[in-house]
Amino acid sequence: MRSTLLSRRDLDFLLYEWLDVEELTKRGRYADHSRETFDAVLELSEQLATKYFAPHNKLNDANEPTFDGERVTIIPEVATALAAFAKAGLPAAAMDYELGGAQLPVTVAQASYAWFQAANPGTSGYSFLTVANANLLLSHTGPEFTERFVRPMLEGRFFGTMCLSEPQAGSSLADIVTRAEPQDDGTYRLFGTKMWISGGDHELGENIVHLVLAKIPGGPAGTKGISLFVVPRFLVDDDGAVGERNDVALAGLNHKMGFRGTVNTVLNFGEGRWIPGGAAGAVGYLVGEPHRGLSYMFHMMNEARIGVGLVATALGYTGYLESLDYARTRTQGRAKLPADPSAPQRPIIEHADVKRMLLAQKAYAEGALGLVLYCARLVDEQHTADSDEEMRALTLLLDILTPIAKSWPSQWCLEANNLAIQVLGGYGYTREYNVEQHYRDNRLNPIHEGTHGIQGLDLLGRKVTQQGGASLIALAGRVQNTVSAARASGGEAAELAGQLDAAWQRLIEVTAGLFAGGDVETALANSSVYLEAFGHMVLAWIWLEQLLAAAGHTGDFYDGKRHAARYFYRFELPKTAPALDLLARLDTTTLEMRDAWF
Amino acid sequence: MRSTLLSRRDLDFLLYEWLDVEELTKRGRYADHSRETFDAVLELSEQLATKYFAPHNKLNDANEPTFDGERVTIIPEVATALAAFAKAGLPAAAMDYELGGAQLPVTVAQASYAWFQAANPGTSGYSFLTVANANLLLSHTGPEFTERFVRPMLEGRFFGTMCLSEPQAGSSLADIVTRAEPQDDGTYRLFGTKMWISGGDHELGENIVHLVLAKIPGGPAGTKGISLFVVPRFLVDDDGAVGERNDVALAGLNHKMGFRGTVNTVLNFGEGRWIPGGAAGAVGYLVGEPHRGLSYMFHMMNEARIGVGLVATALGYTGYLESLDYARTRTQGRAKLPADPSAPQRPIIEHADVKRMLLAQKAYAEGALGLVLYCARLVDEQHTADSDEEMRALTLLLDILTPIAKSWPSQWCLEANNLAIQVLGGYGYTREYNVEQHYRDNRLNPIHEGTHGIQGLDLLGRKVTQQGGASLIALAGRVQNTVSAARASGGEAAELAGQLDAAWQRLIEVTAGLFAGGDVETALANSSVYLEAFGHMVLAWIWLEQLLAAAGHTGDFYDGKRHAARYFYRFELPKTAPALDLLARLDTTTLEMRDAWF
Repeated sequence: MRSTLLSRRDLDFLLYEWLDVEELTKRGRYADHSRETFDAVLELSEQLATKYFAPHNKLNDANEPTFDGERVTIIPEVATALAAFAKAGLPAAAMDYELGGAQLPVTVAQASYAWFQAANPGTSGYSFLTVANANLLLSHTGPEFTERFVRPMLEGRFFGTMCLSEPQAGSSLADIVTRAEPQDDGTYRLFGTKMWISGGDHELGENIVHLVLAKIPGGPAGTKGISLFVVPRFLVDDDGAVGERNDVALAGLNHKMGFRGTVNTVLNFGEGRWIPGGAAGAVGYLVGEPHRGLSYMFHMMNEARIGVGLVATALGYTGYLESLDYARTRTQGRAKLPADPSAPQRPIIEHADVKRMLLAQKAYAEGALGLVLYCARLVDEQHTADSDEEMRALTLLLDILTPIAKSWPSQWCLEANNLAIQVLGGYGYTREYNVEQHYRDNRLNPIHEGTHGIQGLDLLGRKVTQQGGASLIALAGRVQNTVSAARASGGEAAELAGQLDAAWQRLIEVTAGLFAGGDVETALANSSVYLEAFGHMVLAWIWLEQLLAAAGHTGDFYDGKRHAARYFYRFELPKTAPALDLLARLDTTTLEMRDAWF
Repeated sequence: MRSTLLSRRDLDFLLYEWLDVEELTKRGRYADHSRETFDAVLELSEQLATKYFAPHNKLNDANEPTFDGERVTIIPEVATALAAFAKAGLPAAAMDYELGGAQLPVTVAQASYAWFQAANPGTSGYSFLTVANANLLLSHTGPEFTERFVRPMLEGRFFGTMCLSEPQAGSSLADIVTRAEPQDDGTYRLFGTKMWISGGDHELGENIVHLVLAKIPGGPAGTKGISLFVVPRFLVDDDGAVGERNDVALAGLNHKMGFRGTVNTVLNFGEGRWIPGGAAGAVGYLVGEPHRGLSYMFHMMNEARIGVGLVATALGYTGYLESLDYARTRTQGRAKLPADPSAPQRPIIEHADVKRMLLAQKAYAEGALGLVLYCARLVDEQHTADSDEEMRALTLLLDILTPIAKSWPSQWCLEANNLAIQVLGGYGYTREYNVEQHYRDNRLNPIHEGTHGIQGLDLLGRKVTQQGGASLIALAGRVQNTVSAARASGGEAAELAGQLDAAWQRLIEVTAGLFAGGDVETALANSSVYLEAFGHMVLAWIWLEQLLAAAGHTGDFYDGKRHAARYFYRFELPKTAPALDLLARLDTTTLEMRDAWF
């Protein structure tokens, strides 16, 4: 029976036939690997996700973590699943051998992780946060942190969090007020409240390693005065033994619409609840240099944003496969009009509107997976770049693709989940099926790790214009290469290339026009509209890439790819035209709305 | 403090300044009424909804009805609220005096009901289903049914349901298998299982009056062999006393993502559980003539579809007002770039992208409310029509507007709820706020009472073409009247009229083109795309109507109306262009997709 989590056939297509990850094995870092080792990890991931993660996804949702004032209780299946994940070495899949890692390409690791996200985003969330935390520490701290915090995290003994937001500071991190007071021994004592902390308190492991943004008194105002600290739940001795409780207390749980399996918390640092003698502050260790915390965090955040895109994609993908299965077996109505009531009912997949909803889901989910894996391959190229110049070019490209990799799947794979519910009709609206949970879970993704609106400002206000537009030019170069290859390939690919080329040229013209007047407020007034149009353009490019990779191959699988590409160019790409019209005329409707709501 | 359920100011605008419901008081049926009586019912509705319905909306969601095998348990606040609603005479608000009704215009009654839907769609669902049931019986049965079933329903002693779907027959009612066996005494005995029955079993009143579609053996196949029956939960004696239990048994509850406050059931008719001696069939009374059940049900369904539009609208509206309140008080970030971190934070309503999300919600919610009330006014005109010709013209118009009144709010007020969550950010994703529940509740509306896809087929496959396009011509006439008035009014109204006129002409051309080839399958292949483009066109017309009603008035309220109309023409109407392009080229992408999914 084929899995309804993801399509392994599609992963093989994307990894081997399109992104050519086998080529990476020619590079030193990945020289020990081969298609066989890649296949083995994908196979293992599918098995573990199916055996340990999928079965309690619904249970996790229906029995969310609880807090009795003393401790957080989580259903036991979560710890079992995370232990299996850690035992298989998957947290360190992409990390260096010296860390006990498998030194797999990030592209393959992401494909592996997608199985777990599709099976159970709530449970797998604990692990992926921990991996992101470990990656940050590896980038910005030395061996002491590695031994004390990173290794236990990779082994599954410790878990990690990111503590950025506060009740009064979400999108506006400049306004955090948590303070870190320097001590004579070089450590700090932290005081403050952090909000929306996923995995902030639980008993799944021996310890929790919080990465906390805080301000050292006397530093610059705003984001330039933010530093980053490691604040463990329990202090860790020099020999690595877990010691006494640190001054970090759970203030309460947030109860979400979805993603209920990942405990979400409010944490008080320096409240003194756990400390004999009262508040002494939470012991924290500075990461890197003072006042550079936000740049370290953004390094991790870019990874985390692509990670959000991956979760959103995995949810969109599994919803697509579940609704596809349903549509193949559920009979309802007759195929042709006028209907003959004595004829047997037909599977609903034969109805044009159901096909539309499935094609849209296929185009969104397979397109998004392509985009996220494309970004992952750029990271692998960074890890193996031969020159600073190559590294710089890759960074420019990743910079501009990151807000799209975060926002596009968050929007359109949520829409895929919406359509999956619709395909199942009343059944899809019930908790007896999975698709309603996908829809609730996926609704988180346009919010966390920078909202949709923040992604728009990041894209248009920063990435598009940085270094004289170098990122945009880098991406345009890639798009043009694809357009040229598609034109050379001829036939339908050439036809779609013409559409993409024209749309892309319009995008560039419109982008230039936005900044021509020098009025930044007006230029950014419709940054969300820009983000969405830009995203659709990028996905049209990804689909043209997939179409080219399918060229010359016959059979249902490749026909399906061609049909999805065609769908995207006929139903989706044209949606960008009115958005670009609006941007071209520097529409100020939103700016002009004063307090006249009613 | 202003209500966050609905805007009474906007209701006054729509009812008195635009739809001129006071004019209705010149007609015999409504001659006893005046603005004072209308205001009184609106005022009362706001009070009752606020006092009895809103406070337990969240409780109802968190504590959905349960079934212990014997009886259904519902939190007690539901019965209290419904009793208050009935005691105020609201179920019969629009009904004839002889029934104990207030003979209010349907337009005013719908405005009244919107308060309850916004406050608590789960609880109010029981009552609105009952009213719809009563209306059907009043239209198609005689005094005996009125006394035995209708009066107790209007008094709040009995409740009503609609039993159409079966596990194997949802959208395809032709395939129901519930059978009704005629008895010598003129009654019938029903056997079968009904699915998705809202309010199907509970102890809220003395009895439940099920309206059940079933087939009399020997009748024609398909929809032409369907009859309609009254099947009470308890038999009712000739003197109106509630007697012994009928053979209707609750097989189980459906557990939904949202709308949890309304119990949703699977019912077995003729299973024999409650009957000494075993299955004898559920006693049913034929409504009207045999085999005409579906047409009676569709009469009610058209009302129910506009009712669905009203619930969807009310949910969109209250979400808009809650996010508006939040955006006015929540501070985050600075208004201008580059930001000065020492400046105080600004309310998020000052950010352009938040304004965009609020303007969109305003345009969707106030537009949808306008459309639904417009339809209600057409019903009032039907109730007071002077001639068959007038009646026929009104029916043609209502016929074509019904699928829009059902589908457009279901799609776009759900999108409004999506945006309300986004405005609240992480907070909006938690169950501490209301907007996540609105989003879950509203997701039902594109599914029940005919799915979105079914509305598309109804619009394009039936309503647009019926009687040689008479419905479309009737609507086009109304649109042209508005365009002419707006042109005469000049200024911005004239400008928007030009846009609507051009878009509408394109719609007509495209519609003609769809059927030019005589290939029905191709014409209907993209009926959902057509439905959505048509819907946006209708709403552009409704917004031009509202703009005209605001003409010549100054102040924030009217400025807000103008701004929302402007938003709709700049951000929304242009979205129809690519959809019409797709329809114009008779796109067959969906039809051509064979079994090549992966």
